[in-house]
Amino acid sequence: MTYRAPLEELQFLLDRVVGLPQVAATERFGQAGSATVRAILAEAGRLAEEVLAPLNRSGDREGARLEAGGVRGPAGFAEAYRAIAAGGWVGMAAPEAYGGMGLPVTVAMAVNEMFSGACLALQLNPLLTQGQIEALEHHGSEAIRALYLPKLVSGEWSGTMNLTEPQAGSDVGALRCRAEPLGDGTYAVTGQKIYITWGDAAFMPNICHLVLARLPDAAAGTGGISLFLVPKVLPDAQGRPARPNALSVVGLEHKLGLHGSPTCVMDFAGAVGWLVGAPHRGMAAMFTMMNNARLGVAVQGVGVAEAALQAAEAFAAARVQGRTPLGEGPISGHADVRRMLAEMRAEVFSARAIALACAVAGDMARASGEAGGAAGWAARAAFLTPIAKAYGTDAGSRVADMAVQVHGGMGFIEETGVAQLLRDVRVTRIYEGTNGIQAMDLVGRKLADGGAAAFALLDEVEAEAGGAPALAFAAQELRAVTKELLAMPMVDRQAGAVAYLRAFALVLGAHFHVRAALADPARAALARVALGRMLPEYAGLLAQVRLGAADLYAVVA
Amino acid sequence: MTYRAPLEELQFLLDRVVGLPQVAATERFGQAGSATVRAILAEAGRLAEEVLAPLNRSGDREGARLEAGGVRGPAGFAEAYRAIAAGGWVGMAAPEAYGGMGLPVTVAMAVNEMFSGACLALQLNPLLTQGQIEALEHHGSEAIRALYLPKLVSGEWSGTMNLTEPQAGSDVGALRCRAEPLGDGTYAVTGQKIYITWGDAAFMPNICHLVLARLPDAAAGTGGISLFLVPKVLPDAQGRPARPNALSVVGLEHKLGLHGSPTCVMDFAGAVGWLVGAPHRGMAAMFTMMNNARLGVAVQGVGVAEAALQAAEAFAAARVQGRTPLGEGPISGHADVRRMLAEMRAEVFSARAIALACAVAGDMARASGEAGGAAGWAARAAFLTPIAKAYGTDAGSRVADMAVQVHGGMGFIEETGVAQLLRDVRVTRIYEGTNGIQAMDLVGRKLADGGAAAFALLDEVEAEAGGAPALAFAAQELRAVTKELLAMPMVDRQAGAVAYLRAFALVLGAHFHVRAALADPARAALARVALGRMLPEYAGLLAQVRLGAADLYAVVA
Repeated sequence: MTYRAPLEELQFLLDRVVGLPQVAATERFGQAGSATVRAILAEAGRLAEEVLAPLNRSGDREGARLEAGGVRGPAGFAEAYRAIAAGGWVGMAAPEAYGGMGLPVTVAMAVNEMFSGACLALQLNPLLTQGQIEALEHHGSEAIRALYLPKLVSGEWSGTMNLTEPQAGSDVGALRCRAEPLGDGTYAVTGQKIYITWGDAAFMPNICHLVLARLPDAAAGTGGISLFLVPKVLPDAQGRPARPNALSVVGLEHKLGLHGSPTCVMDFAGAVGWLVGAPHRGMAAMFTMMNNARLGVAVQGVGVAEAALQAAEAFAAARVQGRTPLGEGPISGHADVRRMLAEMRAEVFSARAIALACAVAGDMARASGEAGGAAGWAARAAFLTPIAKAYGTDAGSRVADMAVQVHGGMGFIEETGVAQLLRDVRVTRIYEGTNGIQAMDLVGRKLADGGAAAFALLDEVEAEAGGAPALAFAAQELRAVTKELLAMPMVDRQAGAVAYLRAFALVLGAHFHVRAALADPARAALARVALGRMLPEYAGLLAQVRLGAADLYAVVA
Repeated sequence: MTYRAPLEELQFLLDRVVGLPQVAATERFGQAGSATVRAILAEAGRLAEEVLAPLNRSGDREGARLEAGGVRGPAGFAEAYRAIAAGGWVGMAAPEAYGGMGLPVTVAMAVNEMFSGACLALQLNPLLTQGQIEALEHHGSEAIRALYLPKLVSGEWSGTMNLTEPQAGSDVGALRCRAEPLGDGTYAVTGQKIYITWGDAAFMPNICHLVLARLPDAAAGTGGISLFLVPKVLPDAQGRPARPNALSVVGLEHKLGLHGSPTCVMDFAGAVGWLVGAPHRGMAAMFTMMNNARLGVAVQGVGVAEAALQAAEAFAAARVQGRTPLGEGPISGHADVRRMLAEMRAEVFSARAIALACAVAGDMARASGEAGGAAGWAARAAFLTPIAKAYGTDAGSRVADMAVQVHGGMGFIEETGVAQLLRDVRVTRIYEGTNGIQAMDLVGRKLADGGAAAFALLDEVEAEAGGAPALAFAAQELRAVTKELLAMPMVDRQAGAVAYLRAFALVLGAHFHVRAALADPARAALARVALGRMLPEYAGLLAQVRLGAADLYAVVA
């Protein structure tokens, strides 16, 4: 299985479909012109193809291991990580003041997608550091920013997120980890955390854990949670790793996939930490970084879907079985194989366009003043984030699953590589908020504006759907159901949330396909597939949204 | 994870939904009355719960291994296999003349479902023997039947199917394995076969391979294929294993799932074999057993789906995360978790009902004379078989996938057990004819009667859909699309085949839900879920069927 960076496809979407030129027209992101971005993507794509992709299978087979000296990553991961860091890719969207490239998040997401498609297990490491950079940038004290950000941005040190505890998963407010003031401005953090991705790596000189914990006077629930920075090795005043902190990895999980990425059980035994943000305001700090983190997971799904699509296309173009309607030739000539390939391609396009459009909205919000419509862009980014995350990761699973099917019996054999993609991508629908949680967020918080962000998007869809009456009709239906949803009690909204999110994604995906076909007539055929085969699912989904919750609670649990 | 045999559910479906009483009313199956079947299922269920289920996780972790003395199954598999054989479960549907129980296939499928849900990796072994029994019963010479059938029916020896070669998967006609007459009525079989499930097991005294191969004068393609019985150990005149045959396992595949079941690469080096059936008529012999083999795979999907449903229900009833609309309590109170559980339950019911209804049709065909409508029953069984296989195994994957989602982060951890179900069941959509092949069969061969079998089923659906107008309307739509399909060129039919099969399954599933609700009002709530949340997907599917293939061939491959 060979991964090829989809440079032309990304560039087309950025330039012609999702509106990167608008971002590059802002003062803040003036350096992100098309030619510059092309050069950046080419450089990142080369790294993905030549350094990361060759480690994907071997990393899965070897896996990460817990040894006496800490967690040992699979062979080659240390060198590949250093190549990512050396290229400046960890801090590509970070402020230049801290050594970052200051690029739009949109460009960073295109790069992250390629790294994810090439080797998701390794890409998780810089992704978590990127999240930590964002959290510290907004909530860290000046001293913390000055000491830690340059190390994180350069990739010299890595970052992790410590949220989950055995009794506190989706319900973060149930966590029990505690932090006691030591009197010198630092805190002693104590407790166990689970599912800590890249919680340790022998090849990292230092690892900075962001840990959610409770202060002694904390209230119950999410209102009583604070955020702490707890480095593995305590730095001296010059920022050099000086003495080990009181924390350790007590176990690694045996997972369905991502074997190359250590998922750690962490024990904090009075480890020294620094408060990040205000006391009891840890959740607010988490929310700051949540949009970009969720978007980062969205493009993980897209990246794996792209890798699976490539594998299926290559296999179908080479494998000969039976005579096809196109005559003697490979199985890509069979109608049903063609259907799978076309649907996979259409789905990858939709998922990628939604994720990048979400990133563009976020960049526009960051780059625009109040007069420039920052609030509207921010609302759009917020609305699109759960859609991008859930649809992108669903696409990852669906496309990988179809890729296995295209391979027939060979799809079930691990050496082929597509089975690993199916295993690896499965968790992206669970972590960073399950896709069910994304849908709850969409029908709850993200419709709390009375549907303004939703209707603004649908206005755009309808305005451009002149040549696609099926899409115009679907958008009108979705608008009507959105209004109905707003009038429903929350439990009824939640019963239809997953269906509503998916229906919205199908409409947006078709919308971007139509826009692509207008920009490039060669894409009209794929747009017809999207309109004819993917979009029609919306009707059944909206019927479900209208049901509310009554039928579900009538079934004996 | 604990597996509980779904005895009451199976009995209800058999007695009240799919029509086992009609089977028991025939002379041939007069012994299969409700009370007898209840006792049989209870006995099989005990074996599934107490002997098979405890081996599922450990068998996956340990895996089958190729050692010097042959293939060693995981610990406990030999003893559990012997318990299956000792209970008479291998030959439960085989003729009493050869030591079988002579039970209806319907009952055998209910048992197979439970064994599959408990430990699919082991259940594959007797399933393949059952297929071989059927093939030899219909096509073996008297001498072969007399020698081999008692050993296979008792489970003393096991059977395998050797079809696939590296270049000949779905296109069986491309196979190259050859058989040369030795002059004494036997043949020397030479060639390599892949994907041979349970191709060896040190705990079996003998293994009988059914091998597709070409005679020297054979034509190209499927018309030149003959079937041979090639035992691992050649028996003496008394049927005692006497001397090793020239065949060996040269490798085991590393698979996504079913690690406890060895998938062998077999080398036949001039191994002695006997012709089964007429020369060049090997495919016809294979087709004899194909319906029941596909049905056997259908209930594998149902069994795994049942196991996944049970795991998800147990987890959701115990796990507490956040306050639910039902107040403090487990996550089964959350609307979206309830939705997943309700959909899983509705889908398991549908898949099980379709598979058992297909089995009933087959039993009625076997038990009825020409005057009793055997041809009509046979046509119904033939029509339902690809639907049962594809929908049942799709349900296996879908329900296992939802079970992972219900578990959240724990779903991705192998110890939880649901990830294994997802891995194990994946191949059921591929082997015994991929689900795409099933759909081609449905829109090709199975509609070659001009739609008679399809329309007869739809007549029944409409006749009972009085209280469910949505179902009646869907059935009418499906009838209309069936007629349109019959007028389409084959390539257009094939482009919509998978969608057509699924739409038919959704309509049939809803039909059986409605029937169940009429028989037991406590089931009305689940029927509403099936009608409101599952069935509506049919509209989008039928829209796809109507598209034909043009849009697919317009996309550059």
